[in-house]
Amino acid sequence: VENNNDKELVKLLNEFHYADIAEILDELDLDDSIYVIKLLDSETTSDILTELDEDTREKVLKNLSAKEIAEEVEELDTDDAADIIAELPEERQEEVISKIEDEEHREEITELLKYQDDTAGGLMAKELVKVYETWTVAGCLRRIRGQAKEVTRVHSIYVVNKEEKLIGRLSLKDLIVAKNDQKIADIAKDNVDFVNVIDDVEDVAKVMAKYDLEAIPVVDDSQTLLGRITIDDIVDVLKEEAEKDYQLAAGITQDVDSDDSIIELTRARLPWLFLGLIGGVGAFVIMEGFQEAFNQYAVLFFFTPLIAAMAGNVGVQSSAIIVQGLANDDIKGSINRRLLKEMSLATLNGIILAAFLFLFVWIYIGEIDKAIAISTSLVAVIIIAGLIGTFVPLFLDKRGIDPAIATGPFITTSNDILGILLYFWIAKLILGI
Amino acid sequence: VENNNDKELVKLLNEFHYADIAEILDELDLDDSIYVIKLLDSETTSDILTELDEDTREKVLKNLSAKEIAEEVEELDTDDAADIIAELPEERQEEVISKIEDEEHREEITELLKYQDDTAGGLMAKELVKVYETWTVAGCLRRIRGQAKEVTRVHSIYVVNKEEKLIGRLSLKDLIVAKNDQKIADIAKDNVDFVNVIDDVEDVAKVMAKYDLEAIPVVDDSQTLLGRITIDDIVDVLKEEAEKDYQLAAGITQDVDSDDSIIELTRARLPWLFLGLIGGVGAFVIMEGFQEAFNQYAVLFFFTPLIAAMAGNVGVQSSAIIVQGLANDDIKGSINRRLLKEMSLATLNGIILAAFLFLFVWIYIGEIDKAIAISTSLVAVIIIAGLIGTFVPLFLDKRGIDPAIATGPFITTSNDILGILLYFWIAKLILGI
Repeated sequence: VENNNDKELVKLLNEFHYADIAEILDELDLDDSIYVIKLLDSETTSDILTELDEDTREKVLKNLSAKEIAEEVEELDTDDAADIIAELPEERQEEVISKIEDEEHREEITELLKYQDDTAGGLMAKELVKVYETWTVAGCLRRIRGQAKEVTRVHSIYVVNKEEKLIGRLSLKDLIVAKNDQKIADIAKDNVDFVNVIDDVEDVAKVMAKYDLEAIPVVDDSQTLLGRITIDDIVDVLKEEAEKDYQLAAGITQDVDSDDSIIELTRARLPWLFLGLIGGVGAFVIMEGFQEAFNQYAVLFFFTPLIAAMAGNVGVQSSAIIVQGLANDDIKGSINRRLLKEMSLATLNGIILAAFLFLFVWIYIGEIDKAIAISTSLVAVIIIAGLIGTFVPLFLDKRGIDPAIATGPFITTSNDILGILLYFWIAKLILGI
Repeated sequence: VENNNDKELVKLLNEFHYADIAEILDELDLDDSIYVIKLLDSETTSDILTELDEDTREKVLKNLSAKEIAEEVEELDTDDAADIIAELPEERQEEVISKIEDEEHREEITELLKYQDDTAGGLMAKELVKVYETWTVAGCLRRIRGQAKEVTRVHSIYVVNKEEKLIGRLSLKDLIVAKNDQKIADIAKDNVDFVNVIDDVEDVAKVMAKYDLEAIPVVDDSQTLLGRITIDDIVDVLKEEAEKDYQLAAGITQDVDSDDSIIELTRARLPWLFLGLIGGVGAFVIMEGFQEAFNQYAVLFFFTPLIAAMAGNVGVQSSAIIVQGLANDDIKGSINRRLLKEMSLATLNGIILAAFLFLFVWIYIGEIDKAIAISTSLVAVIIIAGLIGTFVPLFLDKRGIDPAIATGPFITTSNDILGILLYFWIAKLILGI
């Protein structure tokens, strides 16, 4: 398909959705991608650009002139345009912005670039349909016909007073159902949800998911309407959040995916493995320290992987439930009540598991004192592991640190060491060494 | 607030959003919740019901008569209504349905109940705005005023031919911008995305997220328009999916949250812990088997927790990346290429980590042959763990099994055992025992 016959190719590609073309380009090599992008008109390619992988987009943009990027950006909604420009190196940003011909578009994009990535301001677009409370329905419909051409989808119509402050909302449906001579102020709904421009995107996502909103207006501290956020952007935020938490739980930092280079993947994975290595060395030092004491009881050493695995698993289970509860705002009440509950739960699970282990050791080794020592330690280790798994994320959250880092290797490693230490202490006590 | 003064309470609650009231009721005890629900009118309470926790809702519904539930259901959109009825025991389902007064609503709900929960049919609602291609814009607007009153939000207007087959779509905006005497067939867009009623909800979510859709029509095999799915339902699907995967990775089955009872939490957590226990016993048996051979090298046993931890961590990291790649449809190309990449990655990470371990053992214990044996085994263990973590989810996915179960305790436990076995084998070989 690639080499000749441009016309055929354009015809073929025009039948695809831009998201599909972006997927194809992600797979092609760079020269071919740029060739295709230069071939298609900027209306299609601008949408393709927004859907490309970040890495591919960076490479493609490097090969386009500032003028060409400005043309692409001109076709996009302000939020997507600002996102693309924000990815460019700083000198290029200014160059591209200066080449945008539409003055209003240029000013809006410049405004959006000022907001932090992870705030409502960084997510919002300037495109929205705004009406003044003093207009009539008929006048409003006339003007909306004008405004709406720029807005791809009309979610809500926002009603403002003459100081541009948000005072209500309307749906297109309300307008169509209303009589022509009614005043906007009379049919507008005044219970309008909104977020502040500096709100965290995760909070915006929570509000929109909770109230099933498809778009939400963004205001500043004086309630002036600045822009709007739509649910499709929130879907992306939710997916990214979920992926980030999932990766942290698996011991992967940075937002990597399976197609990234080996160097990038190493940078994301090695630090956590190194943590595990330190933990393993710690376990070695502990075991060596108990070597003399347990000279007669070498068999006890063979249970350390079991103890470490149980401590790690219980810790990850309890921390995962807390992290998820925190993300859903489900965690209310005192930390002490949570700890008490986890303690009962861990005790119950611990006793059931220890009963099996007791039977195994008793039957297999045939020494009841060892069986008692090992299974009692297991109960204690499970309880402590559960409490640590519960406490650490709650503590981090109170301190304003993302509790998700407490899951995965962090909790496993600390629980491994503590579990093994506890195991030998208790066994020593019970066996009277 | 609770005991007296109903009027005050109703007034107060009416100022809250139904999602907020639901949150309050989740915290109240059962009697008070039912009291509040009977106090408010069914328009509000029906929305509250949909937002309640599943457990709370089950209890509340048990305390309402079939007639009362039917009244609540009557106020809801068909998708929410069907979801609530589906949660009832079977005999009650029929009783409630027979008490629904609106015949059309009753029939639509009965139809929706036939579809599986995890298919497009189980998620769709019957409420949609449908126009025939032969209508004019003016006639269309007139009829939409009628239809739209039943539909809370108009996302898209679906265009059908006289056999009720989906042939295109329109937005309200298109209608408003068009001239009154134009034919629908002339202004409708014919590139309409749709899903089949038996499609999996996860696939529906992928399509909607990829193409940034806010609603998608659902058709049967003969392209007949059956219903529509909106993005807010997809947001819920995405959140549930992410939570399920996250919990599986942490070793928790069933959809539990931190407020569930200790019995429910035990049922979700104990099986995975038991798996870990079996793994630990396996590790014990392996170590015991090598006891005689390594009589002179007792120090080697002290590194088993380190080996097990590294095997587990590497396995979880690589499986998590594959599981995520599969969820995003990012995994293309052959399994062999993936395995080759993971092998290079694991070798690189393994060598770096082994170098540190070598130095530690050499300096701390002072015997170079042991240092070589331990660090060489570590590299081998990391490579094998990475390959297993990559292969197992890919294999499960090929077999049509959810690859997410391969992360967490499953991969950790099997890698623990294999890692320890490999470690002793290689050490034995190198030390020439």
